[in-house]
Amino acid sequence: MAKLIKKRSKKIGLPPGTLVHIGEKKVEVPKITIFDYDDQHVEEKEVKTIEECFVFKDKPTVTWINVEGIHRIETVEKLGECYGFHPLVMEDILNTDQRPKMEIHGNYIYIVLKMLYGRDKNHSIETEQVSLILGSNFVISFQEGKEGDVFNPVRERIRSDKGLIRRMGSDYLAYSLMDTIVDNYFLILETLGEKVELLEEELTTSPTVKTLHEIQKFRNEMILIRRAVWPLREVIIGLGRKESPLIKETTEIYLRDVYDHIIQVMDAIEVYREMLSGMLDIYLSSVSNRLNSVMKVLTIIATIFMPLTFIVGIYGMNFKHMPELGWRWGYPAVWVIIVLIGVLMLIYFKKKKWL
Amino acid sequence: MAKLIKKRSKKIGLPPGTLVHIGEKKVEVPKITIFDYDDQHVEEKEVKTIEECFVFKDKPTVTWINVEGIHRIETVEKLGECYGFHPLVMEDILNTDQRPKMEIHGNYIYIVLKMLYGRDKNHSIETEQVSLILGSNFVISFQEGKEGDVFNPVRERIRSDKGLIRRMGSDYLAYSLMDTIVDNYFLILETLGEKVELLEEELTTSPTVKTLHEIQKFRNEMILIRRAVWPLREVIIGLGRKESPLIKETTEIYLRDVYDHIIQVMDAIEVYREMLSGMLDIYLSSVSNRLNSVMKVLTIIATIFMPLTFIVGIYGMNFKHMPELGWRWGYPAVWVIIVLIGVLMLIYFKKKKWL
Amino acid sequence: MAKLIKKRSKKIGLPPGTLVHIGEKKVEVPKITIFDYDDQHVEEKEVKTIEECFVFKDKPTVTWINVEGIHRIETVEKLGECYGFHPLVMEDILNTDQRPKMEIHGNYIYIVLKMLYGRDKNHSIETEQVSLILGSNFVISFQEGKEGDVFNPVRERIRSDKGLIRRMGSDYLAYSLMDTIVDNYFLILETLGEKVELLEEELTTSPTVKTLHEIQKFRNEMILIRRAVWPLREVIIGLGRKESPLIKETTEIYLRDVYDHIIQVMDAIEVYREMLSGMLDIYLSSVSNRLNSVMKVLTIIATIFMPLTFIVGIYGMNFKHMPELGWRWGYPAVWVIIVLIGVLMLIYFKKKKWL
Amino acid sequence: MAKLIKKRSKKIGLPPGTLVHIGEKKVEVPKITIFDYDDQHVEEKEVKTIEECFVFKDKPTVTWINVEGIHRIETVEKLGECYGFHPLVMEDILNTDQRPKMEIHGNYIYIVLKMLYGRDKNHSIETEQVSLILGSNFVISFQEGKEGDVFNPVRERIRSDKGLIRRMGSDYLAYSLMDTIVDNYFLILETLGEKVELLEEELTTSPTVKTLHEIQKFRNEMILIRRAVWPLREVIIGLGRKESPLIKETTEIYLRDVYDHIIQVMDAIEVYREMLSGMLDIYLSSVSNRLNSVMKVLTIIATIFMPLTFIVGIYGMNFKHMPELGWRWGYPAVWVIIVLIGVLMLIYFKKKKWL
Amino acid sequence: MAKLIKKRSKKIGLPPGTLVHIGEKKVEVPKITIFDYDDQHVEEKEVKTIEECFVFKDKPTVTWINVEGIHRIETVEKLGECYGFHPLVMEDILNTDQRPKMEIHGNYIYIVLKMLYGRDKNHSIETEQVSLILGSNFVISFQEGKEGDVFNPVRERIRSDKGLIRRMGSDYLAYSLMDTIVDNYFLILETLGEKVELLEEELTTSPTVKTLHEIQKFRNEMILIRRAVWPLREVIIGLGRKESPLIKETTEIYLRDVYDHIIQVMDAIEVYREMLSGMLDIYLSSVSNRLNSVMKVLTIIATIFMPLTFIVGIYGMNFKHMPELGWRWGYPAVWVIIVLIGVLMLIYFKKKKWL
Repeated sequence: MAKLIKKRSKKIGLPPGTLVHIGEKKVEVPKITIFDYDDQHVEEKEVKTIEECFVFKDKPTVTWINVEGIHRIETVEKLGECYGFHPLVMEDILNTDQRPKMEIHGNYIYIVLKMLYGRDKNHSIETEQVSLILGSNFVISFQEGKEGDVFNPVRERIRSDKGLIRRMGSDYLAYSLMDTIVDNYFLILETLGEKVELLEEELTTSPTVKTLHEIQKFRNEMILIRRAVWPLREVIIGLGRKESPLIKETTEIYLRDVYDHIIQVMDAIEVYREMLSGMLDIYLSSVSNRLNSVMKVLTIIATIFMPLTFIVGIYGMNFKHMPELGWRWGYPAVWVIIVLIGVLMLIYFKKKKWL
Repeated sequence: MAKLIKKRSKKIGLPPGTLVHIGEKKVEVPKITIFDYDDQHVEEKEVKTIEECFVFKDKPTVTWINVEGIHRIETVEKLGECYGFHPLVMEDILNTDQRPKMEIHGNYIYIVLKMLYGRDKNHSIETEQVSLILGSNFVISFQEGKEGDVFNPVRERIRSDKGLIRRMGSDYLAYSLMDTIVDNYFLILETLGEKVELLEEELTTSPTVKTLHEIQKFRNEMILIRRAVWPLREVIIGLGRKESPLIKETTEIYLRDVYDHIIQVMDAIEVYREMLSGMLDIYLSSVSNRLNSVMKVLTIIATIFMPLTFIVGIYGMNFKHMPELGWRWGYPAVWVIIVLIGVLMLIYFKKKKWL
Repeated sequence: MAKLIKKRSKKIGLPPGTLVHIGEKKVEVPKITIFDYDDQHVEEKEVKTIEECFVFKDKPTVTWINVEGIHRIETVEKLGECYGFHPLVMEDILNTDQRPKMEIHGNYIYIVLKMLYGRDKNHSIETEQVSLILGSNFVISFQEGKEGDVFNPVRERIRSDKGLIRRMGSDYLAYSLMDTIVDNYFLILETLGEKVELLEEELTTSPTVKTLHEIQKFRNEMILIRRAVWPLREVIIGLGRKESPLIKETTEIYLRDVYDHIIQVMDAIEVYREMLSGMLDIYLSSVSNRLNSVMKVLTIIATIFMPLTFIVGIYGMNFKHMPELGWRWGYPAVWVIIVLIGVLMLIYFKKKKWL
Repeated sequence: MAKLIKKRSKKIGLPPGTLVHIGEKKVEVPKITIFDYDDQHVEEKEVKTIEECFVFKDKPTVTWINVEGIHRIETVEKLGECYGFHPLVMEDILNTDQRPKMEIHGNYIYIVLKMLYGRDKNHSIETEQVSLILGSNFVISFQEGKEGDVFNPVRERIRSDKGLIRRMGSDYLAYSLMDTIVDNYFLILETLGEKVELLEEELTTSPTVKTLHEIQKFRNEMILIRRAVWPLREVIIGLGRKESPLIKETTEIYLRDVYDHIIQVMDAIEVYREMLSGMLDIYLSSVSNRLNSVMKVLTIIATIFMPLTFIVGIYGMNFKHMPELGWRWGYPAVWVIIVLIGVLMLIYFKKKKWL
Repeated sequence: MAKLIKKRSKKIGLPPGTLVHIGEKKVEVPKITIFDYDDQHVEEKEVKTIEECFVFKDKPTVTWINVEGIHRIETVEKLGECYGFHPLVMEDILNTDQRPKMEIHGNYIYIVLKMLYGRDKNHSIETEQVSLILGSNFVISFQEGKEGDVFNPVRERIRSDKGLIRRMGSDYLAYSLMDTIVDNYFLILETLGEKVELLEEELTTSPTVKTLHEIQKFRNEMILIRRAVWPLREVIIGLGRKESPLIKETTEIYLRDVYDHIIQVMDAIEVYREMLSGMLDIYLSSVSNRLNSVMKVLTIIATIFMPLTFIVGIYGMNFKHMPELGWRWGYPAVWVIIVLIGVLMLIYFKKKKWL
């Protein structure tokens, strides 16, 4: 499970607005790509220094600057200065330990989301923070910079002029990026869900201690996903509340669509959580059941052989005066008694449904 | 249990409004039926191609187009273009993984509901998505197209002019369809409830591991039903809020009636959930109780026969100088001791209420 | 426990407003009684046919028509037609599977409540639906018609002009009926509470499996009562909201009093529910405790006698060369060892506090 | 635990406003004391008959009438008539089964609170109902009349003119009385808290069945206290809402102080409840742990001695042809085997960490 | 765990506004330090008597008076009189048993927070109450006076003119102090979180009774931290609500930042609580699992050796007529039977997966 609280220690005591990167360094060199487009043309390029982005600032076309790797503070700092972002916003971009949120500043909106990744092998979920800054003619996105992201379909749509994206403004681009991230949650849940259902099957056939730890692990992952998704609800509601002219009327219906998706994801998480907690109950009672059946075996064996051992013990005594020992049919008689007792016991257990 | 998250993977990355069918294909050829009526006449026909529906668009009479089978995208697409539906609405109709919801668009209202089916044999619940589009003079309903639906009573009422249906507008028709779906929930709960009560009886008489899995299964089904019913509450509230002129004043009292029904269904679900969780407690403690009684048997047997076996063991020793062995009444004396110990033990257990 | 979902099946598919009786038939012939009074006079009679009530409709005096037994649909139908009730209201009166609710119609208010009955022998709670219709000069009450009701004190007050009832209008009469029903809840809870306290005592002295089932039964009954009481809260709030001129200012303070009572009942239910769930915890741990003490007995016996049996087994061996067997004090020495081991074991268990 | 629902049975069916005393009779003769003061003078006396109070009604000074013992209905009745209280208010004063509440009537405010008493010996909490009626120049307080109350500090402050009390009006007096009652809650919680902490210690050292019952008892008491405190929150909020001119602006800050105290009490109750439920978990698992260690002892003993007893059993057989029996070192060899097996077993258990 | 309810007993009955110190005395002599600054200059000094502070009252520069040690009532009293604080405020400063809260008085705002300290050795959390009073040109902070505080970074920033602090007003100083306290929560949670994760590891490898008590201890500490953090949310919301001119527009964005931090802390606490409660489940089921495996060992041993001991018991009987005893291969035959039974049992247990 990913760390819940990242090392903030190095930041404590610094004045607010001090730029410190909190989180792991995930790429060596930040990668900066630019898309500049309107309905007529599209320009795509990867730049080495952040200064190359500044020329797009005053163009009327929509500009999408995507920064992968935020550990180089000066990249964020220069961009922020050029576009005039508040120091607290820049501080938050660098701090990967944010909760999804949305802040409306004068002429830009700052949005924090969590991208989820499902590592296939040991199926553990990892999160990556994505910061979006939406201005009237630009969107700047900051990723922590794990290899690969989920934005490729959006890039493809811009390149090939599919859908509405080239005809709509920057708010539609921001929506598209958020939508892609939320769509990705379904994929993660799909994979998780299949694993949970496999686990449920395993539980009814052959539950082991490993099953228990798997259940607990999935519960923890559900907590993690919920933490990423739940606050997003308010982000979208906030954006749709029309408090900023940056969100146009035509985009609102799309935000409603994203909102519906988030609710569906939350819904599914809740259901999985209830299922997992039900599975825990099943597991616990299956442990008790197994104990029961172990004890039945023990009791049956003891109940049959203890009386028998006692009987043969009697005739192992060395008293001088034990008339039975001298009887002609004494030994066979003891055998008859033994068999009788054994059979009666078995009938008794049969009746008690222990066999 | 039905899959919670349907395969959305094929849709990820596509621009919003792209029409992709998500869900199983349930019929081969979509079946389209049309009812066109006012208080004077009624016309009913089944059409082969969707284009045949278009003539009804501008008629002042109420038209109900029912489409069973939505996997043929062009059917939905053509209808949507003819009536001017928003691409996102058409996308949602095709996506059977929706949550019940209601959207008011300019001149039509889009409603998603879940129809519930109880398969009798292994009493598992299945859901089918129903989309309704309500316009000023039409209702279009889309079903996934399982064999049979629950709308027959409404059809009968239109045909035979029973009740108000022919004299009221399209909003009353939409209400009637929703009401029929909600009424069906009671039927499902009735059947489920009977099974739960059977299970409760089984629990007090002879609980087995199967009982536990049944309880868990019912709990999962309650979660499923709740997921279908709960959001419907807001749908009905939304419709009654008079935000659209499509819902007439006279229909509102009927919507209130549906609302009451939904609350009753939710109420019953909650009660069943509490009962099932109580039953789980009972099950768990009955397992413990059985363990207890198994252990008592073992303890009684061991407590009686261990001392006895020890005593007979003593006189099985081969010491040369054991005066008791030579006594005339030694052997009977041992028997007396054995019987005494046995009886004392039994009295002790009787007193402890273990017997 | 009373059925949660009553047989609605026969109603499915019928148009709204169709009058069908849902529930058991509880009396053979409906009994209709009429009180007609003002502060000067009072008239009380029992009528055979419902038509005899119609003469009171336009009188300025307060008329209380009480119908016991609602399975004869025409009784309700005729009354409804005479007084002009909405078909949905009449449908709801006949459907005894309602949730307590309140509906304000033009010139009358429709109220549904649940009367609770405690059958003394097997102390199970039963509910009976009571529908009240409050008009400017009349109150009509419909009961399912079990033998006896809780309204006798109200009747007595009308007859003997005790309290305000004869000087106040129909809204005060409706309040009095509701108040009587709510007062009755206290009685039910009083009886239940005493049984719960008895059960708690039983739990600390001699818990059995029966105790567990009793606890579960009480929990189910608390759910049932809560279902009857909880929605009543909103009914009273709704009535007090002054949306209808039928509720006069002077009656409001009395409604507030009923409201207080309902909150108190809810309060007590919640406390009992928490107590019962605490009792379940106690029960479960008492089962574990008993298992523990059973196992201690077994372990003590086994730990003492197994080593002893082993020792006497040694000297039961038939080796030719066992010097101890020939010793003069061999046998007494073994006894000394046996007693020593036994005493040491007992000291050990004493120290471990198992004895 | 105090009865939750007091005997209301005798009241059922009576018209609202009928004065009936519900609760125990706690003193023989009601004690009525009067304080009449302004910033200049103070008069204190105990009266025999309630009529002696009436002279203070029209004095401009603040009058505090304290009635201990409410079972004599005529006392309350006469006071009520003299001051013109609503019959429902008088009814509520006599009914000691009230929930804390506040009602604003025309020229007086009626407040119900619960005083808590901690009986030291068996540390069980008892509640006593206190009714306050606040008018423009008087406060009337009704207590059930247990020996002693918590108002002495207030009396002392009036007598000795400490604090603001003599210079402020009747609302400040009412506040002082409420504040004293709430302050007393802290005392109760302090004592309870110490006991809970003792219990927690006991739990880690030597948990017994008694510990469990203590935990359950404290949980029930927390429920009881919460029932007394929780509704008080709304009482204070209601008083601070400035709906009545009887509460002066200057008193509001004091009400806010009481409100803070109530929240703190609620806070502490919630924490104790969580701690107690955590303690229950600890108890339950300590029972399981002890079972585990009991079973380990049993298993170790059985696993060591069963094989050994089997071995000595072999050489107790009486076969004619058992070569070992004749061997010179047979007997010592068996001893060697026995010791070997014993040691190996002990090593095995050591490794399994059972020893 | 720190005491929940501090000794308030000595205060009960005193008039409101009476100054009594509640809490432990943590330093001998209160230490008073003063910072007086504007963007041009800064003055820092430690004073002996509180009167030395009064000269700063009317200076336009920002004055920060920090009082460590509040048990000397006269210090607080004199300061309060000089600045004109309400008696209830002074009473609350002295009472270290406050809940975090915020009160807006005429020309100052009173804020109570809790500082958290993590003692490293036995990692228990302790709280210290911090009171802030914010005026137009001053901030007065009261600490209980444990050695060291968390404000050093703020002091450093004032001294060295880092960040905005010298250019902003007193509200920014108050924000900085609160921000430092909240930042410190992350540090505490970081340490706690690491310990919880260590504990989780320990749980999967070698859970002991100590693990259980650790889990419970962490749960209690989470409750304690939540109690300190949760009410702070409302404090910040209240400050941001612009009800007082003391909070300037420019400071609001910083308050929003603190608010975000508090939500993040709450979030983390909730997640830890869920994890800890999941860990408890794991612990409980691991105890059951271990019992299971203990019982399996016992059952295997008993099931193998009981029948064998019975068999050798048979041939230990002393009957005169036991033909087998005389057989030449009798003894080897018994051995064959014994080995056979043993092997069969082992195969059986292998098949049951008990080995």
